[in-house]
Amino acid sequence: MLISPELIGYLAATLTTTSFLPQAIMTIKTRDTESLSLGMYSLFALGVLLWLIYGIYLSNKAIIIANAITFVLAAVILGFKIYNSFLKKG
Amino acid sequence: MLISPELIGYLAATLTTTSFLPQAIMTIKTRDTESLSLGMYSLFALGVLLWLIYGIYLSNKAIIIANAITFVLAAVILGFKIYNSFLKKG
Repeated sequence: MLISPELIGYLAATLTTTSFLPQAIMTIKTRDTESLSLGMYSLFALGVLLWLIYGIYLSNKAIIIANAITFVLAAVILGFKIYNSFLKKG
Repeated sequence: MLISPELIGYLAATLTTTSFLPQAIMTIKTRDTESLSLGMYSLFALGVLLWLIYGIYLSNKAIIIANAITFVLAAVILGFKIYNSFLKKG
């Protein structure tokens, strides 16, 4: 086989994490979370956290690395969303 | 252990796929892809396809199911984006 499964895993991790980065960086920079759905984003962040835990169970580095990076970014954005939605106005 | 690793995988798959659904359905219904980045969305769709292939290598059902559903939706949206960007005006 020319391409190892591990390489496909790392390439997959790199592509999906990279595709999330520009949006995440923009949201973290501007702190504008107006167009994000709190419910959907909460599901996403929790889902990514569970993928991370699942990756740890499987001892699968590609799954761990991809979801660790995405979870940190998603958690920061979710933090801004919660702050903007509930605390800013108070 | 109270929660099996498999259950965590399926729960993770359900959450991340569910969080993608409303946006995907809205985009497919309205066919409005103005606010999507072609470059970033192409990376995402290719990344999800590679996760699907990786899941098949690992014979991991949670990874296969999550990424198969997400890939089909992402591919349809990407098709609309490409149509709107290059073919609609021609």
